[in-house]
Amino acid sequence: MLTDTLQTYKKVVDDQLTKLLKTPNKEYACLYKAMEYSLLAGGKRIRPILTMLTLDSLHVGWHPYLDLICSLEVIHTYSLIHDDLPAMDNDDYRRGRLTNHKVYGDGMATLAGDGLLTYAFECITDNRAAKNEQKLSCIEILAKAAGPAGMVGGQAYDLHSEGQTLSLKELQVLHAGKTGALFLAAIHMGTILGKASSEIKDAYISYAKALGLLFQITDDMLDVTGTMEELGKMPGSDEKEHKATYTSIFGLEGAKAYACETAEKAKQSLDGLEAVDTSQLVALIEYLLHRSA
Amino acid sequence: MLTDTLQTYKKVVDDQLTKLLKTPNKEYACLYKAMEYSLLAGGKRIRPILTMLTLDSLHVGWHPYLDLICSLEVIHTYSLIHDDLPAMDNDDYRRGRLTNHKVYGDGMATLAGDGLLTYAFECITDNRAAKNEQKLSCIEILAKAAGPAGMVGGQAYDLHSEGQTLSLKELQVLHAGKTGALFLAAIHMGTILGKASSEIKDAYISYAKALGLLFQITDDMLDVTGTMEELGKMPGSDEKEHKATYTSIFGLEGAKAYACETAEKAKQSLDGLEAVDTSQLVALIEYLLHRSA
Repeated sequence: MLTDTLQTYKKVVDDQLTKLLKTPNKEYACLYKAMEYSLLAGGKRIRPILTMLTLDSLHVGWHPYLDLICSLEVIHTYSLIHDDLPAMDNDDYRRGRLTNHKVYGDGMATLAGDGLLTYAFECITDNRAAKNEQKLSCIEILAKAAGPAGMVGGQAYDLHSEGQTLSLKELQVLHAGKTGALFLAAIHMGTILGKASSEIKDAYISYAKALGLLFQITDDMLDVTGTMEELGKMPGSDEKEHKATYTSIFGLEGAKAYACETAEKAKQSLDGLEAVDTSQLVALIEYLLHRSA
Repeated sequence: MLTDTLQTYKKVVDDQLTKLLKTPNKEYACLYKAMEYSLLAGGKRIRPILTMLTLDSLHVGWHPYLDLICSLEVIHTYSLIHDDLPAMDNDDYRRGRLTNHKVYGDGMATLAGDGLLTYAFECITDNRAAKNEQKLSCIEILAKAAGPAGMVGGQAYDLHSEGQTLSLKELQVLHAGKTGALFLAAIHMGTILGKASSEIKDAYISYAKALGLLFQITDDMLDVTGTMEELGKMPGSDEKEHKATYTSIFGLEGAKAYACETAEKAKQSLDGLEAVDTSQLVALIEYLLHRSA
């Protein structure tokens, strides 16, 4: 069952994350405490799990690459810390606990994010199993996905367009950066570590694009239908901040139909591939389509 | 003359920086504008120039590596943007113009910093001249120097210890991260690109440590003696914010003596090396010792 796998893999990622950060001296301990607070706060760990599921499908063990794979969660955590800052979304709760700046102050939270962002690249260079070419490819994929043409670009456009009505096309550009880029990077990194053929890589990248979009549509839906208990953060924040979302464009029912259509597209991307076992990747589509958190 | 070289090299770096950022789409243009505002605001460009002078001394041309070398200035610029934020030093002027958040707002300034920090690693992966091993080494050096055990750690300790009296030892730990780590990285990257022997590399690293310390001591002195016109930022901010500095510990005269002693140490690190031309590196020590900006 995919849900069992997700639970097991989440635990593996959680364990690996506890081993990553090593305070170098007592003077910098204040920073490491703030970084750890958010990194070890739980969460679905979906991005590293995507890489693990990709490697599973390619019949390649992910264990030797765990630190490298965790770079994705390290980057994701930094983006949440900065996104929650008063200068950005000004959120008080995240993953069921107070946001980083609520505990450590705005300045230290900014630095905790900066520290995690930079450290993500160390997670890749420090890995002992991947070949130099693979590490460089992973660094390039991660930097481009997380950087100004990817995640940060999407965040900036989100901030810049607050209160404006966006077209579907504009919203897609926003989310292709904000959430899509890191989903894509996770699966792309899996194909690099798993030495996938270019046919499989192309198919997986199509799948990843649809999957990222599906995740965002259901995320927007959960912000309308979810509870604080389910989400670990306050629902209704998109509407409160007049953000353009798939539910604000299509309505809840329309967003659901768009989610089903996108799920179908993700499934079709994997059709007819040989020598790979895509069963978990297909199950993940269903899981995201029907998720409640 | 070193001052001519510094001026020429600064122009080379400035030119390269104008070519680095390419806005990927109109939606993310708001972010690129904010990133460019600070990246092209001038400055001494001392960190990339350090790499260039290191390569000169090793008789290796730096031209093919310029984009990679500029990663140092990209990282430095991000750190200035975040450092100036209201949550940190709350500065209004930098490099003679309004700080990033004063023009673009705190949220966009945070993202402009994030974008530059991530982009710095792209500057390295995108370089076409360096070998894969050299690129990976440079990424590792830059990530460790700029990350939580380096620059960000020093920044966090600086923020955490505001208003406290620090010992000399503690101040050294603070600055080894805050300014020293990136100076060291610049010269270390030069030895990697220039394929220096381990004897030369070790000597250059000792030199770099002393040079970074010298830069910080004179920086602290300039905050006491400099003018807004010379510095491009408000002098006296350290005292205003009750920051521990080398002048607050030693007084102005004592700091000057410590600077001379550190300059002597830097010079001695380069003594007796063969097959390298250290004349510019030695001249740089004198230049930093007597700088007025």
